[in-house]
Amino acid sequence: MQQLFVIKIGGNVIDQDEELQSFLEEFAGVDALKILVHGGGKIATKIGGQLGIQPNYVNGRRITDDDTIDLVTMVYGGLVNKKIVAALQARHCNAIGLTGADANIIPARKRPVKEVDFGWVGDVDAKEISVKAVDVFLQNGLTPVFAPLTHDQGGHVLNTNADTIAAALAVALSGNYNVRLIYCFEKKGVLENVEDESSVIPLIDPEKYQQLLSENKLFAGIIPKIDNAFDAINAGVSEVLIGDAHDLKKNILSETSGTLIRS
Amino acid sequence: MQQLFVIKIGGNVIDQDEELQSFLEEFAGVDALKILVHGGGKIATKIGGQLGIQPNYVNGRRITDDDTIDLVTMVYGGLVNKKIVAALQARHCNAIGLTGADANIIPARKRPVKEVDFGWVGDVDAKEISVKAVDVFLQNGLTPVFAPLTHDQGGHVLNTNADTIAAALAVALSGNYNVRLIYCFEKKGVLENVEDESSVIPLIDPEKYQQLLSENKLFAGIIPKIDNAFDAINAGVSEVLIGDAHDLKKNILSETSGTLIRS
Repeated sequence: MQQLFVIKIGGNVIDQDEELQSFLEEFAGVDALKILVHGGGKIATKIGGQLGIQPNYVNGRRITDDDTIDLVTMVYGGLVNKKIVAALQARHCNAIGLTGADANIIPARKRPVKEVDFGWVGDVDAKEISVKAVDVFLQNGLTPVFAPLTHDQGGHVLNTNADTIAAALAVALSGNYNVRLIYCFEKKGVLENVEDESSVIPLIDPEKYQQLLSENKLFAGIIPKIDNAFDAINAGVSEVLIGDAHDLKKNILSETSGTLIRS
Repeated sequence: MQQLFVIKIGGNVIDQDEELQSFLEEFAGVDALKILVHGGGKIATKIGGQLGIQPNYVNGRRITDDDTIDLVTMVYGGLVNKKIVAALQARHCNAIGLTGADANIIPARKRPVKEVDFGWVGDVDAKEISVKAVDVFLQNGLTPVFAPLTHDQGGHVLNTNADTIAAALAVALSGNYNVRLIYCFEKKGVLENVEDESSVIPLIDPEKYQQLLSENKLFAGIIPKIDNAFDAINAGVSEVLIGDAHDLKKNILSETSGTLIRS
């Protein structure tokens, strides 16, 4: 099977143009099949503020009301996505900007209302992803660039976490490709000691993970990320790498620089 | 050659949601290869106003400054484009939203500064359009939906008139397809008497056009549209139709309802 890299960048890269351009320079240079998934960044909050759209949180989770879905459709699907596409094109990477609505690639379900109504938020199932459409792009020399948006197949765009989209794409494509899912992270990788950037754990397998958990060594915020990584691996993804956006070039090679997660 | 319809809708359809949905219902039902090109509508001006971006005109032509290109990238490339895509997907039309930057489909040149600096405005040349990319989409069951944006291949998104994009796509694809270019218009077609909606001229060929011009019958605003139509026809497009968005179904048949322009 051909190797495919599914690479996710978050707000920390997107919010600083110099960081973003330097990342895109490296990304454009990756000489392999690749998909980019980008998060939103703070720009949506900034533009929302100017438009009088107040962020609305319940239990620390942002609610996507009518105004907010329009805002993120504009900012993530338009401004951020097309700027990235144009910047990659300038670097001879034949990018195509997409949301999950385009070519019906990522149909989603509006999150059911339980204690909280999250609004226009989409939950995705990797089994429903249109692998055929993504394949057509990849096999015709195109590099898909996904904004963190899906749709409900009923005419509504939905807001979906970029980590979730990256994992679902990686899982869906793992039937046809040997997939490495790379989460570009604000640190060098998963740290044994969160204060010490040099304490990156190079490899986590299920045994190592159990050991780290039992020793209570991991920073709480990283645990859901590692759980998601193992979920992706159990669903067919070859390996997941959590590392620094600056180390992208190393992290597409076998000698990686962040934390590699494997079964 | 297969028949292909390149259909352009303008602000008058986009600005009214009921009109837009009814148009998209008809468009989704067109059982043929098709491309949609949409204009901007007034929403960009409205959102720009809320963001404190003042429209800047020179000789009646809007200047696309730094803030304005970001605004239209958001609104045309994000909000309007993705809403149309989601609405078409809900109607089982497998739409894919695109700008000219995506897949490098429409490279453009920033308009040279002469008396006026138009800012981030792109001029296109049909010869530079990536017919291969559009073909891949069409032959894989996808319906391209273009926002009126191009790029300079140097990392900048450019603002390009939707009529121009529709004509350039029609011309570029006329080597592979039998293309009818349809401009959906706020009137029933080209009128002999601009006050009388029933005076639609069903067919304009070069002789008829000369006659109409010499009789001074045409409304001045329509002349550039007809000139552009003949330019497209001279460059390979089979026929151009100027008609009402509501008559789309008729206008994909041989018995048309607006004004058909042919050589």
